[in-house]
Amino acid sequence: MVDYNEAFRAAVDAVRAEGRYRVFADLERMRGRFPTALYYGGHNERERQPREITVWCSNDYLGMGQHPAVMEAMQNALDKVGAGAGGTRNIAGTTHYHMKLEAALADLHGKDAALLFTSGYVSNEATLSTISRILPDCVILSDELNHASMIEGIRGGRSIKRIWRHNDLEHLEELLAELPAERPKVIAFESVYSMDGDIAPMAEICDLAEKYNAFTYLDEVHAVGMYGKRGGGVSERDGVAHRIDIIEGTLGKAFGIMGGYIAANASIVDAIRSYASGFIFTTALSPVLVAGALASVETLKESNHLREQHQERAARLKKLLADAGLPVMESVSHIVPVKVGDPVQCKRVSDYLLEEHNIYVQPINYPTVPKGTERLRFTPTPLHTDDHMDKLIKSLDDVWTALKLKRAA
Amino acid sequence: MVDYNEAFRAAVDAVRAEGRYRVFADLERMRGRFPTALYYGGHNERERQPREITVWCSNDYLGMGQHPAVMEAMQNALDKVGAGAGGTRNIAGTTHYHMKLEAALADLHGKDAALLFTSGYVSNEATLSTISRILPDCVILSDELNHASMIEGIRGGRSIKRIWRHNDLEHLEELLAELPAERPKVIAFESVYSMDGDIAPMAEICDLAEKYNAFTYLDEVHAVGMYGKRGGGVSERDGVAHRIDIIEGTLGKAFGIMGGYIAANASIVDAIRSYASGFIFTTALSPVLVAGALASVETLKESNHLREQHQERAARLKKLLADAGLPVMESVSHIVPVKVGDPVQCKRVSDYLLEEHNIYVQPINYPTVPKGTERLRFTPTPLHTDDHMDKLIKSLDDVWTALKLKRAA
Repeated sequence: MVDYNEAFRAAVDAVRAEGRYRVFADLERMRGRFPTALYYGGHNERERQPREITVWCSNDYLGMGQHPAVMEAMQNALDKVGAGAGGTRNIAGTTHYHMKLEAALADLHGKDAALLFTSGYVSNEATLSTISRILPDCVILSDELNHASMIEGIRGGRSIKRIWRHNDLEHLEELLAELPAERPKVIAFESVYSMDGDIAPMAEICDLAEKYNAFTYLDEVHAVGMYGKRGGGVSERDGVAHRIDIIEGTLGKAFGIMGGYIAANASIVDAIRSYASGFIFTTALSPVLVAGALASVETLKESNHLREQHQERAARLKKLLADAGLPVMESVSHIVPVKVGDPVQCKRVSDYLLEEHNIYVQPINYPTVPKGTERLRFTPTPLHTDDHMDKLIKSLDDVWTALKLKRAA
Repeated sequence: MVDYNEAFRAAVDAVRAEGRYRVFADLERMRGRFPTALYYGGHNERERQPREITVWCSNDYLGMGQHPAVMEAMQNALDKVGAGAGGTRNIAGTTHYHMKLEAALADLHGKDAALLFTSGYVSNEATLSTISRILPDCVILSDELNHASMIEGIRGGRSIKRIWRHNDLEHLEELLAELPAERPKVIAFESVYSMDGDIAPMAEICDLAEKYNAFTYLDEVHAVGMYGKRGGGVSERDGVAHRIDIIEGTLGKAFGIMGGYIAANASIVDAIRSYASGFIFTTALSPVLVAGALASVETLKESNHLREQHQERAARLKKLLADAGLPVMESVSHIVPVKVGDPVQCKRVSDYLLEEHNIYVQPINYPTVPKGTERLRFTPTPLHTDDHMDKLIKSLDDVWTALKLKRAA
């Protein structure tokens, strides 16, 4: 006799035993006061009076989630058309906002067309699995640190997968060279890897793709809005967007809303549009979100101001951490990881910062990062002031001493 | 030498050749005037002055997408917290709105807990594939007409799948009886099937589940908000919600917004929360949407008024169609399909209604429905008036004559 409840309980117990049971922080953002938010206490605690904390781990990287242009666009759409799209894209759910945003995203990446999905996760999963269907005997060459959504998409497509060592061009070439010329090959990789903050050698990957006639699929979710003169991502910054076949991005990080997309040539987009189950059989994004995203994309196309501030803030935080002898990890991007190296300690540091210093930074443990590299992952935004940083450094210094953690060498 | 572009072009050509290339209608909803919308012309046409049309195929079944309580809640959330959640549920993206909506959904279905996903599609896909992981040697018994998202979830989980003939209790029992007692068994089905409008014999399925100790997974996306005294779906109406292990629903149809969820006992929800990749690694729903959904769920819990109007409207439309000799298909729900029986004619009828009568109803062709059963699928709402219906019947009568289509026997 199968005991189903026992099976689910045991699955949760296993997560607890590994020290990676997640307790969600119950927050309320405060429009106009980001990165300040109200904290309502953890998932399992009795609700209490909320208190103000500073968020240091948001993916609203540029604070666009409260930008006046975005607020105004969402306001107008809510007034004009109401809440939801009312259907799938094919059945009553395509609105004029969707058409305009897809055109704006195609333009952002210098491509013919773009296609919206309900999330970046879905855009990766649906597109990669559909590519396998359209190129049935293809081999997908996947960077070993690719995001879960890419892995699921590749797995779902059931193509042959070859994993290349992270950002290792020699290994990628070795794998490409092994494959017969007539075999379709898809190189799938990210620009900015979100947990380490390193960036792919994109031009060199494109060189290899051309040499071996491979198709390129690039996830720019941690770069769109933040890199390139108009926010087109690292592929724009490095001048290689035209060499990438599919650029995938999100509206949920630098653009501050939610949703995902791909940009590519017209026939690729039309094929994905026509075959991807995760695109076809789901309610379209709310036009309120789409209107906000359009304003966000256009705002970040027009000016480099927020991008420059963002990089300055990240550089300053890295320097302050290093000066204080805190073990900041190497990163060439806006992501600032600080190593703790143990899951239990990592959670403890996070709890201590929240309880003692009203600072919120989520512990990042296995399986999101390898065991032994557990870390705090700070995401300074243009709205994190010098005062916020000084307070953060003092608080980290305190917790490092209180918990006797290892300083930088 | 592989020609990638040619492969994508050929894939699109294949869809065209089968007569099922989709052209999205470019619409703009009009808050306060639903089911009227602006039509901007088809995807591939040159943009022209938009004109007013009547939408007859929206899944905003009750018009909640423009309900004052929903508008007010979204407005307040936009003012208070801004656009996006700012992160995944685990990393800065859980807001107090999410906690409240999950509690409201658990209450709606009389369950311990609920869990939000970015869409109903994702809730099905992520949950069903995770169930397979937690019950590794399970057999999933799937109704043959289950939605694409359930099929993808079952496929992704790589459990053994057995398909039972649609709503056929004898066949289901036959398959259950073949399996050994110690084998975990999951019965996956829907309440209202959206293309035919028929309803599962839920109590009898629960009887079989108990007899053979099977776990039950129920998709109520076309029923939540619309059936049961508080909108808990057919499982509430039939008094069997407590006999279903997981109830899955959407916020994108009767609730008028977007997003999906499951409701179940605490350990099931906690396990899915802890293991489902499609839940963990994605930006949380925008708090603006979550606030609107909460208002929608609570509004529909409090009163049966819209549900009664909805059923009355659907019954009236079915009668008018039958009286006019139009081939309305049998349906026991709010969904009103009218058979055309040929994909090209079906598209032609839809185009004619839009061009000549400003009536929008999307043609439903293979693979969404079996070949030979191509249809128009009308979804009357409480906001479709007698005048709307009279105009629709006259217009259908006109097109049936103009295109020499088959009338009802």
